[in-house]
Amino acid sequence: MALRMSTLFLRTLRDDPADAEVASHRLLVRAGMIRRAGFGTFTWLPLGLRVLRRVEQIVREEMDAIGGQEVHFPALLPKEPYEATGRWDEYGDGIFRVQDRKGADLLLAPTHEEMFTLLVKDHYSSYKDLPAYLYQIQTKYRDESRPRAGLLRVRDFVMKDSYSFTVDDAGLDEAYEAHRAAYERIFARLGLETVAVEATAGAMGGSRSEEFLHPCAIGEDTFVESPGGYRANVEAVTTVAPAPLDEAAMAALPAPEVKETPASTTIAALVDVANELAPRAEGAWTAADTLKCVVLTAVLDGDERRQFVVAVPGDREVDLKRLETTVAPALGLSGEPGVEAATEEDLRRHPSLVKGYIGPGAGPDGGAPVLGAESVSGLPFLVDPRIAAGTAWITGANADQRHVFGLVAGRDFGWDGVVEATVVRDGDEAPDGSGPLTARRGIEMGHIFQLGRKYAEALDLKVLDQNGKQVVVTMGSYGIGVTRAVAAIAESHRDEKGLVWPRAVAPADVHVLATGKGAEVFEAAEQIVAGLEAAGLTVLFDDRPKVSAGVKFGDVELIGLPTSVVVGRGLADGVVEVKDRATGEARSVPVAEAVDAVVAEVRDGR
Amino acid sequence: MALRMSTLFLRTLRDDPADAEVASHRLLVRAGMIRRAGFGTFTWLPLGLRVLRRVEQIVREEMDAIGGQEVHFPALLPKEPYEATGRWDEYGDGIFRVQDRKGADLLLAPTHEEMFTLLVKDHYSSYKDLPAYLYQIQTKYRDESRPRAGLLRVRDFVMKDSYSFTVDDAGLDEAYEAHRAAYERIFARLGLETVAVEATAGAMGGSRSEEFLHPCAIGEDTFVESPGGYRANVEAVTTVAPAPLDEAAMAALPAPEVKETPASTTIAALVDVANELAPRAEGAWTAADTLKCVVLTAVLDGDERRQFVVAVPGDREVDLKRLETTVAPALGLSGEPGVEAATEEDLRRHPSLVKGYIGPGAGPDGGAPVLGAESVSGLPFLVDPRIAAGTAWITGANADQRHVFGLVAGRDFGWDGVVEATVVRDGDEAPDGSGPLTARRGIEMGHIFQLGRKYAEALDLKVLDQNGKQVVVTMGSYGIGVTRAVAAIAESHRDEKGLVWPRAVAPADVHVLATGKGAEVFEAAEQIVAGLEAAGLTVLFDDRPKVSAGVKFGDVELIGLPTSVVVGRGLADGVVEVKDRATGEARSVPVAEAVDAVVAEVRDGR
Repeated sequence: MALRMSTLFLRTLRDDPADAEVASHRLLVRAGMIRRAGFGTFTWLPLGLRVLRRVEQIVREEMDAIGGQEVHFPALLPKEPYEATGRWDEYGDGIFRVQDRKGADLLLAPTHEEMFTLLVKDHYSSYKDLPAYLYQIQTKYRDESRPRAGLLRVRDFVMKDSYSFTVDDAGLDEAYEAHRAAYERIFARLGLETVAVEATAGAMGGSRSEEFLHPCAIGEDTFVESPGGYRANVEAVTTVAPAPLDEAAMAALPAPEVKETPASTTIAALVDVANELAPRAEGAWTAADTLKCVVLTAVLDGDERRQFVVAVPGDREVDLKRLETTVAPALGLSGEPGVEAATEEDLRRHPSLVKGYIGPGAGPDGGAPVLGAESVSGLPFLVDPRIAAGTAWITGANADQRHVFGLVAGRDFGWDGVVEATVVRDGDEAPDGSGPLTARRGIEMGHIFQLGRKYAEALDLKVLDQNGKQVVVTMGSYGIGVTRAVAAIAESHRDEKGLVWPRAVAPADVHVLATGKGAEVFEAAEQIVAGLEAAGLTVLFDDRPKVSAGVKFGDVELIGLPTSVVVGRGLADGVVEVKDRATGEARSVPVAEAVDAVVAEVRDGR
Repeated sequence: MALRMSTLFLRTLRDDPADAEVASHRLLVRAGMIRRAGFGTFTWLPLGLRVLRRVEQIVREEMDAIGGQEVHFPALLPKEPYEATGRWDEYGDGIFRVQDRKGADLLLAPTHEEMFTLLVKDHYSSYKDLPAYLYQIQTKYRDESRPRAGLLRVRDFVMKDSYSFTVDDAGLDEAYEAHRAAYERIFARLGLETVAVEATAGAMGGSRSEEFLHPCAIGEDTFVESPGGYRANVEAVTTVAPAPLDEAAMAALPAPEVKETPASTTIAALVDVANELAPRAEGAWTAADTLKCVVLTAVLDGDERRQFVVAVPGDREVDLKRLETTVAPALGLSGEPGVEAATEEDLRRHPSLVKGYIGPGAGPDGGAPVLGAESVSGLPFLVDPRIAAGTAWITGANADQRHVFGLVAGRDFGWDGVVEATVVRDGDEAPDGSGPLTARRGIEMGHIFQLGRKYAEALDLKVLDQNGKQVVVTMGSYGIGVTRAVAAIAESHRDEKGLVWPRAVAPADVHVLATGKGAEVFEAAEQIVAGLEAAGLTVLFDDRPKVSAGVKFGDVELIGLPTSVVVGRGLADGVVEVKDRATGEARSVPVAEAVDAVVAEVRDGR
């Protein structure tokens, strides 16, 4: 088929849209692929929609190849199944909620675990029916607080979500590996470099979990790699902690000592004071020797604010985003709370805390410790894994201008839980012991989860096993952002002149231009287009009669089809120019051979 | 490709689902095509989804063939464009409204006129860019108060909506005819008998408008046909009114006369009393000689209740649904109000109305008339077209137990507007003069509208015309219910045993069954399936090893693929059975010829 630019609903733009921060957004808008529809939403224009559909089709083919079966759920769903699993509350204001005319609560689903679980429950009752891999390709909705970067973070987006149902963990492992392999094939076909990194399960629950990140400077995720091949999202990195000491070893350490430390409310000031007051033989005190107790607030659904304290080495920053995904179990919460610094008002509720001098030990008058669930403050007290038993710290003495030196974890103070709380840094030690970690940014393209039995248990999905016993079904959940894939491809396949689509997802196979004014140019171009169409190719045909060659060449580079054919000046010599968008290479081809030459290139996948 | 029933996510049901009222709902659920997801929403299962996609593709091909260009808008849209055209209010509680986390109002769009208008405005500025036909195939949402009949009336559904943009009315006519012809081709390809009937434009505004109805006993719409070929939705039928008399002719009619008419609060009683009190030479009075003044309430957005009175001949019933689509202009309203009978409480607000004796003339003491905007009651007074100038009526005299005889319309009383208000009946005179109308029921499959300039004006979509003058663009809007088409096809292509899919939309081309226990049966079936796949057909393969032949045959008829191949007993004689689902005809075919025989049948489109 041919898309004729004389009638195609397309208007390419010379200038960048004012609101575009990233290249893919700028170029997709300028090339007439997408258009802003509202806050955080876009309209797909004809060329962009063709790319989207091709990406969808590649995803579909690879899902079918592993035995996936496509179904389609409504996006607008009743509240009840989400209440049964607790997610109606957990989602907070991240989802769009709707009331119908009768006042019934509905949601625009961001993901469909509950509905798939109920569907399988409705259909299957025996281990013989399993495994089942079901998927859908669907528009999902999330009430993003900060949509950004064009298609990368939007409020509605196409996603492929699949779910595996197996009778046991071995089946789940198999389903997980099948999806993992399918994802690798999908990203390879899309021309999208990705790395699979360990991830936290987040609100989904479950155990093993990996993200497929596309390394990219504008990515919102940061992941780390070790020389030995360990890869993880920073939120999921396991901190390498010192080995804990046993009781005897701890007892042998010097006793803690409270010192006056005037004007030492910052770590830097404290280190200076410490080196002045109590210089250390084995080297100067550093921020890593101090223990910082940070008061935070978990914001629960319904805006309840609950304070807790996290202790981290003084040279480390608390990573609030990471804490949001890690802190819930330690605080006994079921969902993912928001986590933010405690406000002055939050702090006033806890008068036992002496600002700038908070520590996990007792107050100036001795007695019970200040931090911990059973303490004077009553505040849950969590520590970073580096605060292992036997580590000694300079930390607040819970009195104005006083710190305690040599306070030993596990001997002089305890804690309510251990939590990954700090910002991971380039150069941190890798958990596989292979050396320092390096950090890179990436765009999350897909996520695979071993859900285990969380949803099946909540919704009572059981089957009879081989022994005639009822067993809870084991589930996995696997997502790919289809909309986001279009953006990531555009982001990574472009140059200063425009987009450079990989052949597998290009909106058309070849761009044919008639340049010049003679009727013979247009006639020759028409014939080539007809030949390409007859060969089954999709042709973008610039048949606009009164548009300059310069504008047409500009559009070829902006729109970025892999191959273009210029029918123009060369026609006098019986040739047309066949050009490769990615390499810029052009070659003259006799008119009569043009169709075959292009078809060969397209079929080769070059 | 082959869909193997041993692993296909399919569970056919012996029994009808309890909530299914209509055959398509029963059979689509029993055949494992759809499943209830929530109130008025369904999940598409693998086989059903294949039908839906095939219907979509037929619609897409025919839209492309008339130069339609596919785009895709978000379903979740900002309020502002809908406010600009007044539809945010007009929709009332028929749409789902959403607030985001910042309190901004959004809607789940039931139709997209505004967004398409703004998109074209954003792209085009000259008559040279037009005509443009744009469409999308999309999930739409309506907050139906009474979802019913399975897929026929649901709260989310796939719809193809297209919009034409042309520089003038002639262009609009062309676009309209192109869509009309495309719709006829679409319905023909879908195997769906439809009739195009005149329709009211409803909330869409605009002028010429036709519905494509699929004649069907369970349809929600009623349409009428004349012997001469006039066809209209009953809501759009033009009543044949008597010719009005001129003033002189009216003046020559007898003067009205008030009579005591005891206990005559019903039309039947009034006719009896009239024939007793004042027998008429030219034949008995009938209900058609009386004028019934019905007090109604228009329910506006925000629940405001506004009373008005409609006069109809006493032998006619008021059609409230029809009034909802016709009454707005006569009452000076912009949207479509709800219309219902006035309640006792409504009536108490209008003490000048004497229940059972309401009439359009003066009260018992003379003076101003009781009905009309400038009258004693102040109530807007509308009349059916049959109440033409010069018609004489027996009607209420606005006093207890009194009626007036010979009250002449246009001489003795006036009105604020004429409105189509009555139930259309079988046998009513057709407006084309060709004889009596017959009424049939139908399912609305599509609707085409000449919108004119309503949306373009509200949203300021103008282009430069050939004379360099800014002109408002002329629009048309054209919808097809894709989800509903699946239901209608199922409703009209079935028998007592199950579904009978037309070949063009069947979920697979052929159903191959292996019946019996011998390995040779399954091997032979596998070979035939492989041959059919190699020929490019989609095969539903019943390869279940431990399922009886009876169950397999039952599923063949329930699922309803056009052709089936039974590999079983006949194999001993070297034959398989090829069966046609629609005719029930079966023939024996040598195993070696089975693939070719089936391929020929599928290619023939039989």
